[in-house]
Amino acid sequence: MRRILIIVQYIGTNYNGFQKQPDPKLKTVEGMLNIAFKEVFREDVKLIASGRLDAGVSAAMLPIHFDTENKIPLWKVKGAINRFLPKDIRVFKTEEVDENFHARFSVKQKTYRYSMYVSPDEMPFLEHDHYRLNTMPDVDLMKEASKYLIGQHDFSAFMSKKSSIKTTVRNISNIEIIKNNTGIYLNITGNGFLYNMVRIIMGTLLDVGYGKIKPVKVQEILESKARKNAGKKAPGHALMLLSVEY
Amino acid sequence: MRRILIIVQYIGTNYNGFQKQPDPKLKTVEGMLNIAFKEVFREDVKLIASGRLDAGVSAAMLPIHFDTENKIPLWKVKGAINRFLPKDIRVFKTEEVDENFHARFSVKQKTYRYSMYVSPDEMPFLEHDHYRLNTMPDVDLMKEASKYLIGQHDFSAFMSKKSSIKTTVRNISNIEIIKNNTGIYLNITGNGFLYNMVRIIMGTLLDVGYGKIKPVKVQEILESKARKNAGKKAPGHALMLLSVEY
Repeated sequence: MRRILIIVQYIGTNYNGFQKQPDPKLKTVEGMLNIAFKEVFREDVKLIASGRLDAGVSAAMLPIHFDTENKIPLWKVKGAINRFLPKDIRVFKTEEVDENFHARFSVKQKTYRYSMYVSPDEMPFLEHDHYRLNTMPDVDLMKEASKYLIGQHDFSAFMSKKSSIKTTVRNISNIEIIKNNTGIYLNITGNGFLYNMVRIIMGTLLDVGYGKIKPVKVQEILESKARKNAGKKAPGHALMLLSVEY
Repeated sequence: MRRILIIVQYIGTNYNGFQKQPDPKLKTVEGMLNIAFKEVFREDVKLIASGRLDAGVSAAMLPIHFDTENKIPLWKVKGAINRFLPKDIRVFKTEEVDENFHARFSVKQKTYRYSMYVSPDEMPFLEHDHYRLNTMPDVDLMKEASKYLIGQHDFSAFMSKKSSIKTTVRNISNIEIIKNNTGIYLNITGNGFLYNMVRIIMGTLLDVGYGKIKPVKVQEILESKARKNAGKKAPGHALMLLSVEY
């Protein structure tokens, strides 16, 4: 048995998320990978991704591992799979890994990026992967508010709904908010993220940026552990999994 | 009679260039604008763009002027037109201009950007607007070669075919070649560009970067005024009209 790690980059716009759906009409990234793997490995290969990504969300690098008995040389795997994938999904790295490596459970840190631009009009160059804001939020207030989220906390207030997870405690090690000529970018790094957590944090920080709530209110929301107190979840198309560290 | 200047941003990928084609099956940016203008102004409006853009080429800002008798308030024009345009074409600025202003003849300078990335594999995030290079070219040699193109020259060697133009002399005021974490970018500024000129310059500079010709050879090609001596034209999807100055 061999365990292989592949790193995939994909644009999420045309897919109903990563995870295969029971409804075969819903196109998913995993579904497209399954088809390509079946062609290459001539067997059903079970793919373990570092995590799930929502509909519309993109990945600069998504690590996925799988086990196979197939003897295909490693250097052939990438090219072989890519031949059967659509242009918006690409394997760009392959590696043989130890059987103790697990794409999901071995994760140390993940970084997501949320991208926004400020314009009263849609800009075609940015619209597909940025969230459009009509007016400029106060980025300094957003930075101040983001400080309350750093560290180990129960992030229940920033989770869309209960799923079968053991704990809602996560450790956020860094939040950067960058404003440049193109737009406003939030980079958030943590040991894990709850369902919709980055998008709800983003929506809540935007409430701060627009003066709807004060920065310190973010701490109260966090402590309340109640989803109803946090802001709306920001749209998925502007979210990207930037990197995963093991 | 009023003369109005609009600034349009569009992604060229899905269009057969800017200019309307005789074959109505060929979708063009001008064709899409004509449909939207007809809806808003209830008359056929003749659009004068700052220049023509090839199939696949994008524009960060393309100035277009037109004359109309229609009394619609200026502030309504942008929103009205955008309602009838596809998402990959957007008017983002409108202005009333003097009747001596001409979107094409009043141009002082234009800047184009050509974008490349280096990877043995297609990267979905970059593939749509970057030209993929398998291996790293020598960017210093390309910079050295680009110097020979600066200034006023007859650029016949860098033009795809004769068209009905008065002169093949153009003045290139600046060429920047930038290498960063994402890719390699050529920014070229001049008072005008011949048909396919930027793409042929790009192809020729890549021949320099890959050691096929020496930097000084670019001067010889220029002086020869013969298209056959220059390099291949680089693909259109990686070219973008960055700005136009009046």
